[in-house]
Amino acid sequence: MSSAGDERPATSRRRGRPPGQRSAETRERILRSARLRFAHAGYDRTSLADIAQEAGITPRAIYHYVDSKPELFNQAADVAYERFAAEVAQRVLPGEDTQVRLHRLIDVFRVLYREDPTLIAFLSQASIEARRNPELEDPVTRAGTDRSALPQALVALALVRGDLTPDVDPAGAAALIEVMGAGMTLLATRERGDEYLAMLDVMERLLDGTLFVQRPRPA
Amino acid sequence: MSSAGDERPATSRRRGRPPGQRSAETRERILRSARLRFAHAGYDRTSLADIAQEAGITPRAIYHYVDSKPELFNQAADVAYERFAAEVAQRVLPGEDTQVRLHRLIDVFRVLYREDPTLIAFLSQASIEARRNPELEDPVTRAGTDRSALPQALVALALVRGDLTPDVDPAGAAALIEVMGAGMTLLATRERGDEYLAMLDVMERLLDGTLFVQRPRPA
Repeated sequence: MSSAGDERPATSRRRGRPPGQRSAETRERILRSARLRFAHAGYDRTSLADIAQEAGITPRAIYHYVDSKPELFNQAADVAYERFAAEVAQRVLPGEDTQVRLHRLIDVFRVLYREDPTLIAFLSQASIEARRNPELEDPVTRAGTDRSALPQALVALALVRGDLTPDVDPAGAAALIEVMGAGMTLLATRERGDEYLAMLDVMERLLDGTLFVQRPRPA
Repeated sequence: MSSAGDERPATSRRRGRPPGQRSAETRERILRSARLRFAHAGYDRTSLADIAQEAGITPRAIYHYVDSKPELFNQAADVAYERFAAEVAQRVLPGEDTQVRLHRLIDVFRVLYREDPTLIAFLSQASIEARRNPELEDPVTRAGTDRSALPQALVALALVRGDLTPDVDPAGAAALIEVMGAGMTLLATRERGDEYLAMLDVMERLLDGTLFVQRPRPA
């Protein structure tokens, strides 16, 4: 956390970057600070001044970049969701079978978490807040889809290929993917560092059936 | 949802129950209404009057049962957590190995969800709200423990028995149990009905390695 003040000299002066790029950097920092503070204290209890402080700019300077708190929240949510959706389109959907696709979905969480844990944390945060605050919109809805669309698509693809054991309930399987996704986003709000990445590795073992030592089991 | 009014005649008069029992029933209904409304709209945006309306009593009558909104929230959270902890102690911990214990943990969610989905939904809700609102307390903390204690105990027991493949990261495994638990509680806030129970069945298949059709895979 930085103290309130004007633009940090380290950022605004380094390598003599042109104003356009400096402005883009500040904008990026504001979005990240927004995700951090909103995720930590919730929408209602976070002010634009809190976010400005986190981003190391003055409460007044933040108005060069955003018009209002709901607008900033929606922008921050859109950025997180767009990054997620782009990774899914690139990595997950081209997978050759369901297990491969699910491994790649775990990869998406790994890549985004390494890039910035607040991206992951904001995926569920935004939806919960949007349900409660009429001035906010769920970024998934704004993108013209809904949160169960990806799980349903993965299950539909699994059914086409016959990847699931025949008596598995498809709606239950889609809901399980939602549960795993919700859990992965929720845990990212608690700043776990490497433990989060280790958790993703263990999830891949569960998916492969290599988590437990196999022993003959009594009938 | 019921209209605002005094005690519902159907409840307060049926079978001529003594006042003590009627009072206990009203109290139970208030706690359930509290879980429902807090989970739906969040703590800040829910009033005692909203909860009274949901419970079918007058805004004034609710003060016979609770002193304040934070007190009611904490009580509702304690009830949900105590039910969960009692089920875990009875079902999960006596399990003979890790896979059995995890199946029984899924059973706990199944039993509580069937009893009342708001019990499950409130397990994560209470923790998120407590982090944000200084007047609220996490029921897990109030019970003298923390949210990672059960996952850590399950992993510690697994290590004693050698149930996990040797190179599995124990902290990652404990975090995965937290992720699954968080996901299971979060999805319960969305009122999924039978789909929730079907999801638990699919989770058991994932645990057993019987979710996917086994095919020879290219190296």
